[in-house]
Amino acid sequence: MSDVPATPLLDTVQTPDDLRKLPPDQLQQLVDELRAETISAVGTTGGHLGSGLGVVELTAAIHYVFNTPDDRLIWDVGHQCYPHKILTGRRDRIRTLRQGGGLSGFTKRAESEYDPFGAAHSSTSISAALGFAIANKLSDAPGKAIAVIGDGAMSAGMAYEAMNNAEAAGNRLVVILNDNDMSIAPPVGGLSAYLSRIVSSREFLSVRELMKKLARRLPRPFHHAARKTDEFARGMTMGGTLFEELGFYYVGPIDGHNLDHLIPVLENVRDAEEGPILVHVVTKKGKGYAPAEAAADKYHGVQKFDVITGAQAKAPPGPPQYQNVFGEALAREAESDPRICAITAAMPSGTGLDRFAAAYPDRFFDVGIAEQHAVTFAAGLAAQGLRPFCAIYSTFLQRAYDQVVHDVAIQNLPVRFAIDRAGLVGADGATHAGSFDVTYLATLPNMVVMAAADEAELVHMVHTCVLHDSGPIAVRYPRGNGVGVETPTEAQRLEIGKGRLVREGKTVAILSLGTRLAEALKAADQLEAKGLSTSVADLRFVKPLDEALIRRMLTSHEVAVTIEEGAIGGLGAHVLTMASDEGLTDGGLKIRTLRLPDLFQDQDKPEVQYADAGLDADGIVRTVLTALRHNSASLTEGARA
Amino acid sequence: MSDVPATPLLDTVQTPDDLRKLPPDQLQQLVDELRAETISAVGTTGGHLGSGLGVVELTAAIHYVFNTPDDRLIWDVGHQCYPHKILTGRRDRIRTLRQGGGLSGFTKRAESEYDPFGAAHSSTSISAALGFAIANKLSDAPGKAIAVIGDGAMSAGMAYEAMNNAEAAGNRLVVILNDNDMSIAPPVGGLSAYLSRIVSSREFLSVRELMKKLARRLPRPFHHAARKTDEFARGMTMGGTLFEELGFYYVGPIDGHNLDHLIPVLENVRDAEEGPILVHVVTKKGKGYAPAEAAADKYHGVQKFDVITGAQAKAPPGPPQYQNVFGEALAREAESDPRICAITAAMPSGTGLDRFAAAYPDRFFDVGIAEQHAVTFAAGLAAQGLRPFCAIYSTFLQRAYDQVVHDVAIQNLPVRFAIDRAGLVGADGATHAGSFDVTYLATLPNMVVMAAADEAELVHMVHTCVLHDSGPIAVRYPRGNGVGVETPTEAQRLEIGKGRLVREGKTVAILSLGTRLAEALKAADQLEAKGLSTSVADLRFVKPLDEALIRRMLTSHEVAVTIEEGAIGGLGAHVLTMASDEGLTDGGLKIRTLRLPDLFQDQDKPEVQYADAGLDADGIVRTVLTALRHNSASLTEGARA
Repeated sequence: MSDVPATPLLDTVQTPDDLRKLPPDQLQQLVDELRAETISAVGTTGGHLGSGLGVVELTAAIHYVFNTPDDRLIWDVGHQCYPHKILTGRRDRIRTLRQGGGLSGFTKRAESEYDPFGAAHSSTSISAALGFAIANKLSDAPGKAIAVIGDGAMSAGMAYEAMNNAEAAGNRLVVILNDNDMSIAPPVGGLSAYLSRIVSSREFLSVRELMKKLARRLPRPFHHAARKTDEFARGMTMGGTLFEELGFYYVGPIDGHNLDHLIPVLENVRDAEEGPILVHVVTKKGKGYAPAEAAADKYHGVQKFDVITGAQAKAPPGPPQYQNVFGEALAREAESDPRICAITAAMPSGTGLDRFAAAYPDRFFDVGIAEQHAVTFAAGLAAQGLRPFCAIYSTFLQRAYDQVVHDVAIQNLPVRFAIDRAGLVGADGATHAGSFDVTYLATLPNMVVMAAADEAELVHMVHTCVLHDSGPIAVRYPRGNGVGVETPTEAQRLEIGKGRLVREGKTVAILSLGTRLAEALKAADQLEAKGLSTSVADLRFVKPLDEALIRRMLTSHEVAVTIEEGAIGGLGAHVLTMASDEGLTDGGLKIRTLRLPDLFQDQDKPEVQYADAGLDADGIVRTVLTALRHNSASLTEGARA
Repeated sequence: MSDVPATPLLDTVQTPDDLRKLPPDQLQQLVDELRAETISAVGTTGGHLGSGLGVVELTAAIHYVFNTPDDRLIWDVGHQCYPHKILTGRRDRIRTLRQGGGLSGFTKRAESEYDPFGAAHSSTSISAALGFAIANKLSDAPGKAIAVIGDGAMSAGMAYEAMNNAEAAGNRLVVILNDNDMSIAPPVGGLSAYLSRIVSSREFLSVRELMKKLARRLPRPFHHAARKTDEFARGMTMGGTLFEELGFYYVGPIDGHNLDHLIPVLENVRDAEEGPILVHVVTKKGKGYAPAEAAADKYHGVQKFDVITGAQAKAPPGPPQYQNVFGEALAREAESDPRICAITAAMPSGTGLDRFAAAYPDRFFDVGIAEQHAVTFAAGLAAQGLRPFCAIYSTFLQRAYDQVVHDVAIQNLPVRFAIDRAGLVGADGATHAGSFDVTYLATLPNMVVMAAADEAELVHMVHTCVLHDSGPIAVRYPRGNGVGVETPTEAQRLEIGKGRLVREGKTVAILSLGTRLAEALKAADQLEAKGLSTSVADLRFVKPLDEALIRRMLTSHEVAVTIEEGAIGGLGAHVLTMASDEGLTDGGLKIRTLRLPDLFQDQDKPEVQYADAGLDADGIVRTVLTALRHNSASLTEGARA
């Protein structure tokens, strides 16, 4: 969709070693070419653009100043790493980003020694960097660890936990706060850059360290005052008190797009004998690409686009996305039930809650990247009579597992979990796959766990959540578009623990949970064509199970197959456990469970991922036929019609 | 073991309403009696003592000043709540604490309207309180929410996430920081109390609020300076900058044992129009009971004891505790492998790591209550070549589930998890039970999950962890004492995914994971006595399964039973899944899975809990006999013997 730009200087840079050989006055040209190449590549592949454009200068400056890969550079979240990938030996594959078999859209250890720690979830970088730094300290190795973390990621508790433990790393740890909060316009002009340079200089840091040591020898009452004076003197010009309180030397803010400001400060930080140091860098998402700078979301995540116009490839018209079906259903429910609240952890539009937020701003809570708080806050709201919906992606709800167990399930509070991105997620790959939620939720007493088979079912399940006042309830649904069924005008209340028989047959029973239902029905057609009469049930609930329906399906067919978009321990495990509890296997039971495989699947088109996992119609048919052919005392091929 | 003290004034107080009728000059007598009663009760039952004694005055003062239960009082962790229980209608049952059928050792919603939110894990209180406060704000209800949280609990990320979101609650939220860090001796004399009183007064807060509002109308460059000046003026005398940065009004520190300081400050806070306010209260663990004050652990958790002497009942001599077997085994391993590190989240002695810490202080990391950071920090250490052991209780590892998935399992890093308190935990009850770890870990690709059957097995498994360099590995073991087998002098490396046949029979197969092995062997004796020849396998691994051993057990016996100390989704589910994958159920398979029931079991003696769950020898025998009697096409009663 876009031409490859001319990048004569960048063409000479295969690795950071090449970069470090450049004279300083060529760096501006290099970052200009790096920016053009990044835009061109993402124009071809789609992906995260705004974040990468915001750190083009920072990426080049860090590799220029620090000795990567021996100095360990850790990008928080990792979605801003495309310029980094271009500079670290992966330029030849940059137009395979997020494609099957291509480069990951995040940092990944398996890809490069320049990716010492993979990421994709937020706020892990300081903890990981601290691990690298302390390991070097223990072995007296020279390398530093540099974490680059966004201001949004700083709202997560684990970043705070890490900062609170960082002091022991000393100057082996550098944290770069990449502050691109669009609502803030701090002073990042020449004076601030000058001050930052002074403050980060070896001499200044040494004097401060000396003062600290002296203060420790003074009688106790003087400590606090001495520290406060120091903080005050620095804080009046620069801010950053929070980080100072946590034991960091704070430097900044500085303009993250100005190499003349960045390089000298980073050089000072590199050479400092004191630490840990936090460098506050101010950047703009989408910087240097006019369509991105002009867009509200700064082209955070984009489809393929035309580089000249910025026009993104339009998805073909199709059914609505599940996230929006959820968001609109919830907003409708909120009209008649004032107890309904909605909570998101920094994903107002990804969760489809934007419409709810606009209609009910008082009842909408974006708590930032803070899933633990989100869930326990919801528990508090529920305990005081409200009916909160926590809308959190499956993979991110892992962040709040203990809160689900300890604050919600044990207390049996009516918190409702809207679990988006359940199952495989395509281009985002293994780190974002929602593979485990059924297993980790359905094992909990008091929980009700549903999965929607299509967008109409999702509407009914949201309504069912609303009316389920006796305890926690969860509904999971996938990334992407619905299957195209009509959205119901009237939402139905589903009976808790009751599935539905979608198609009735005699020989084969398919027990489906969630959106594999469409493939199950396709498989049923294929099986019928082979003379195998097939029933298909949409179980709707994995907890509690529809025991009567399952019993009937298992005992009145020759073979039964369960299918789910999740790892071992979910639907299949629960059905098998029920079957063995009841002795249904005693006399012979041909049952197979289709589930995600025991590996972390790399990014690809979802349909390819599901085919690889054997979770499409062909996979179902294959499993059924193999099972039927399997030797068995009670059944023979001939017995079938 | 202890006499009940004379408490004439306390005897007149059944609820906080009674307390609030007392004239101020009687409060000192009341708290003295409350302290005596607390000591006496815990002398009888054992339990948490030091924390409760530290908050006797605070408990009385809060209930005296605030309008509980309409004002919602939330005790973080909840182990300091015994005085609170005595004052809130539960005195008649206070000597049943932590006993089967008795009061919980923590706050619990089901027990009392004065316990609006149950706790037992740390650092949830501010999130929950915020939920109550915001719910009241939405419904324009008058009640406040008061969270009392210790300084240790403040190290957890979720407390920070909550504080970061607290501003919206305004004066409906009060956080009381109960600072009993023994290493700190802040100024809590008369001057500080006087200042705190001034600072918390309505007049002072109003002036500050006005100044803030004025500053907002000034040009932007003045905001920061104005804020800093305010902070500086307050900070010079009082500290608390971190909380101010997070949007709180900070008041303190004040002496938490001086009612004349506490009451007026709390009254000011109650009546303040601004907020949220954080009140910094300094207390001493074990306060007012000489043996506790003198003890290093301040009687944090005690056995029954003699009130006069403080002498605790000694546990009868027995096998070593699993935690110490682990700790000593790891310390031995560390002698020869310098890559081994150990990480705890504020549980150095509970995890048995104290010996390791003493021997290898450089390689020992107590990160505070910060499980998320602990795991990702370990991942960083592992990525840089070290071999960290994360020793975390099963129930607390839930706090770091996403870090286990995203930072360890996906990257396949050699982090070793030592999972203590796996299974039921007796007096600590449902909140501390380690019921879910097998399910939530064994569903993850790359993970190896072991469970030790006895203390000798634990030694071998620690050694196996040390040598497993190719990815993550976990070993789980229970609270309490080993079974009394000899500790091996030479640790063996176990083959990954291989179990052992402990006893060979013909009719019944028991597949055991973990320390139910002893009961499985007892059950085997009972079954033999009934003429049922019984095999017992100790599977050792739930992931990967010993498929050959399991296949043999399932196919060469009339009935097979799995047993584990965990909820659905664990061993039983994995064995059933393997069996159905292989078609072993096709021709008939009598198999039952014994596991924890689908409910949160209250505290009791562990042996009672396991009997209730059907996980003792009698339960196993019962299940086997019932299964054998179950009608089946392929087997009849007569075919046995």
